[in-house]
Amino acid sequence: MDLNKLINEIKNKKSFLCLGLDSDLSKIPAFLLKNNDPIFSFNKALVDCLHEFIVAIKINTAFYEENGSQGWSTLEKTINYINLKYPDLFTIADAKRGDIGNTSDKYAKAFFKNLSFDSVTVSPYMGSDSVEPFLKYKNKHTILLGLTSNNGSKDFQISSSDRNSLFRRVLEKSKKWKGSGNLMYVVGATKSDHLKEIRSIIPDSFLLVPGFGAQGGDLKETFENGVNKNIGLLINSSRSIIYAGNGDDYLDKSLQVVKAYQLEMNDLLNSLDD
Amino acid sequence: MDLNKLINEIKNKKSFLCLGLDSDLSKIPAFLLKNNDPIFSFNKALVDCLHEFIVAIKINTAFYEENGSQGWSTLEKTINYINLKYPDLFTIADAKRGDIGNTSDKYAKAFFKNLSFDSVTVSPYMGSDSVEPFLKYKNKHTILLGLTSNNGSKDFQISSSDRNSLFRRVLEKSKKWKGSGNLMYVVGATKSDHLKEIRSIIPDSFLLVPGFGAQGGDLKETFENGVNKNIGLLINSSRSIIYAGNGDDYLDKSLQVVKAYQLEMNDLLNSLDD
Repeated sequence: MDLNKLINEIKNKKSFLCLGLDSDLSKIPAFLLKNNDPIFSFNKALVDCLHEFIVAIKINTAFYEENGSQGWSTLEKTINYINLKYPDLFTIADAKRGDIGNTSDKYAKAFFKNLSFDSVTVSPYMGSDSVEPFLKYKNKHTILLGLTSNNGSKDFQISSSDRNSLFRRVLEKSKKWKGSGNLMYVVGATKSDHLKEIRSIIPDSFLLVPGFGAQGGDLKETFENGVNKNIGLLINSSRSIIYAGNGDDYLDKSLQVVKAYQLEMNDLLNSLDD
Repeated sequence: MDLNKLINEIKNKKSFLCLGLDSDLSKIPAFLLKNNDPIFSFNKALVDCLHEFIVAIKINTAFYEENGSQGWSTLEKTINYINLKYPDLFTIADAKRGDIGNTSDKYAKAFFKNLSFDSVTVSPYMGSDSVEPFLKYKNKHTILLGLTSNNGSKDFQISSSDRNSLFRRVLEKSKKWKGSGNLMYVVGATKSDHLKEIRSIIPDSFLLVPGFGAQGGDLKETFENGVNKNIGLLINSSRSIIYAGNGDDYLDKSLQVVKAYQLEMNDLLNSLDD
């Protein structure tokens, strides 16, 4: 997807909400378990119900790999359904891949070409030649882990013994990589105090912000510190939306949560015009 | 697999060779393409032919994900076949996963429980709580990326602006994590000049050493700098073995390469007794 299209969708829908499909057989409503592919039924119904209020969908590959080739087939059905029926939604494979060049080539082909995701999350640990195979694809976006939302981010990404934190070096170096125009970054919502600093390094890039909802990130603070001239934010919530309910009315419960998020986003976006 | 069993296998077979199944439809012998599942046929024949001379098998998930749910099914058939027929081989899912805790839980379950791999490669970027879900499994091994074989390792793992290199911090910190007895480390064969330093930090851990063969690593140098009291090395080669030939005689060609590697390893191991 061309970035201008994503920016227009955000402005039209007054939403920068990303729906995270961390869909788990042990947590979805029990009545779905009689279906042939319960996770696909769950995903399809959620996307059909929520698509007007979201601009992006993030599929966390771990939740599909857990179910082996059957799970991978569910992932394929889900992304194919979204691409066919809702081509205006920006799709994210949350896969956190990254390997030596000839292997990253395969991952890039798997997610960008075969599954037609618009983007994939990638770990920077192995450096430029592990990421550049992803950056070659036109209108495909590589979302590099910057500063993640979990506590373990303090182990290496932010290091007290290190004047120049790793996450900052990742932002600074990756800007110079070939194809860096196709980079976005993961910055956890629980790290919104770092957002101003991050924006000083990568003012123009889109940020995928997970950790909102179940992990406790604050939307207003994230927005105020992270917004740029193109909005530049995709705020993800997974568990707080998809498991809002687990009975027959689960879609209504999810819709209530999403509408509340979208209303808050609407107000924040309108505040930019003041 | 219990580590003592792996150590005994190394001593009995006089080999610390790991076979990397980076199996690629575009590179396997053409006559296999008529088979129902060509990659599985290729893998099965290679393992049947080479198992006496190797102690470990590494399956690179990217090469299977490239073929979607069909590829994932091939991966399942391959690991199931190895586990059933050659339970003495140490199996590695080269997946380079890593995510927040509840997601790493899923990856650990996918590889350790469902697919019964003995080990999985994991990226340290997200820190302790992204790795510890893997470390909980008894007799399962988490192979953390330390210093990788590719050029991009210079971007963050080794950094001139940083007195205390990232890869060293990864080794030092991870030693203290809960369940760290289940840790092994990836150290590229192209980085054998760093092995003595690495051994001073993690003297007892097993190292998975890729980059031998197609990537140019040197076996003798790696062995001399990396061997410990339990040998402590698994040297992987993928392309130089599996694509040694691509005609009807591809197995013979692969066997010749593997026998030559094993003979060199036999001599290196015998040199320890001198």
